[in-house]
Amino acid sequence: MAILLDGRAASSSIMEDLKAQAIELRKRGIIPTLSLLLVGDDKYSGRYVDMKAKRCGEAGIETRVHHLSVETTQSQILSLIEQLNRDPSIHGIMVQLPLPKGINELTIVEAISPSKDVDGLSPMSLGKVLMGGGGFLSAGVEAIMELLHWHGISLERKHWVIVGLSNIVGKPLAALLMNMDVTFTCCNADDPRLAENTRRADILVVDIGRKWAVTADMVKKGCVILDNGNNYEEKKVYGDVDFEAVKEIASAITPVPGGIGPLLITMLLRNTLKAAARASG
Amino acid sequence: MAILLDGRAASSSIMEDLKAQAIELRKRGIIPTLSLLLVGDDKYSGRYVDMKAKRCGEAGIETRVHHLSVETTQSQILSLIEQLNRDPSIHGIMVQLPLPKGINELTIVEAISPSKDVDGLSPMSLGKVLMGGGGFLSAGVEAIMELLHWHGISLERKHWVIVGLSNIVGKPLAALLMNMDVTFTCCNADDPRLAENTRRADILVVDIGRKWAVTADMVKKGCVILDNGNNYEEKKVYGDVDFEAVKEIASAITPVPGGIGPLLITMLLRNTLKAAARASG
Repeated sequence: MAILLDGRAASSSIMEDLKAQAIELRKRGIIPTLSLLLVGDDKYSGRYVDMKAKRCGEAGIETRVHHLSVETTQSQILSLIEQLNRDPSIHGIMVQLPLPKGINELTIVEAISPSKDVDGLSPMSLGKVLMGGGGFLSAGVEAIMELLHWHGISLERKHWVIVGLSNIVGKPLAALLMNMDVTFTCCNADDPRLAENTRRADILVVDIGRKWAVTADMVKKGCVILDNGNNYEEKKVYGDVDFEAVKEIASAITPVPGGIGPLLITMLLRNTLKAAARASG
Repeated sequence: MAILLDGRAASSSIMEDLKAQAIELRKRGIIPTLSLLLVGDDKYSGRYVDMKAKRCGEAGIETRVHHLSVETTQSQILSLIEQLNRDPSIHGIMVQLPLPKGINELTIVEAISPSKDVDGLSPMSLGKVLMGGGGFLSAGVEAIMELLHWHGISLERKHWVIVGLSNIVGKPLAALLMNMDVTFTCCNADDPRLAENTRRADILVVDIGRKWAVTADMVKKGCVILDNGNNYEEKKVYGDVDFEAVKEIASAITPVPGGIGPLLITMLLRNTLKAAARASG
């Protein structure tokens, strides 16, 4: 039976660290502040922004929520971002995705100053990571690295396999790994030799959005598994990995829910505090 | 015996295309122009800049060579780049690397406007490629893709293996492949399971700077091999792949010299013409 890579436990403990960091910053006269941009009335996005604001409050990070109507134009969003980029009291800027139709997400995200891009989604942030440092990493990648670190799992000489290459997990993770002493393989969900590839993984990261797509026969004994799947079925959430069967083979595995998910907001807060600390010299 | 991926033949033919493109642009009143920045008196760098300028001339691209003394400060270089970024008559900016000690290459390269970064070396260009398009690709990656295209080698469903992850070949190539329907593995030259990994390659790209590091037993029958090695020994140049032995197993292979090398300047010229065409709308 595999070790559970428990995101809730890691998250609570890291939150204590973050609170202490925020107190330190405030002692030095810096009020760590995150701008949250929400466009339109998508219920799920609204709730997610509320959760982020609430968790910021718990950590001692101030938030400025800009809730813009669905009619807001792209150039209005861009000029708000420009204004926030210039405002020294704002340390991080997060645009809740997806944006309404007709707005180019890449253009919006690209406008965020790299020093405030605490979501790590702009091409500049990704490019800096790829070149070996300095860019913020997405919360998903920070969460994966944190879970491994938290459980003392060595990364040295491991063969990683990444299945699914989204802008928020697969691509930035691969960009990070290119600068580490590891070997890694990237594949799509519909790779005809997928099982052959996943079976070579010492560390397997799955982010494809298909319930239980990775089955027990696709995993090597002792593999470490990070499952970013979030597949809803009748109000229950399932991972991309068949947890019950695979946990008997893996040496460590994230549960879904309770693995990567609980760390995501925490990692956003940590990036915001990092941005505040950097901005203050 | 493998097909030779002959960069000289491809280059001469592409040069004819580029000349025609330059003539078209000039007819529309656009004089495609590349700025070449050379700092210091490194003989090799100087010669390389001269070659680039000469080849630009052949293609109908105008060049402005800025040869700065070794004492030039970083901020002087940055303000020159700023000026070239703003100058609408300049379509591409290329800084010859390496730069003298004390100058941060990343800071310099980062200052080049993405629309003029025809060398594709800035983090913004790399990040754009990683996110799926719009950024210029390095000449090395363009050359690799061109050689495959030129010889009609299908990329579909291929397993690529990239050995060596430099900022000019391995990393941008991996960033490109992340947006294609392929599987790929990245490894370092000192991967203890290197041979096991290279033997899985349908397309093998090697860029590690070690003469004949890839031997015949490390290659699968029918593999396509792109060798970016440039290892000098007594005025002769050798690839990273043991060409004589491997050519009996591979289905296609770049000779060294005469493979990727001859295409590098040609690809820089092609990017410059692309930048000029884009700038003119």
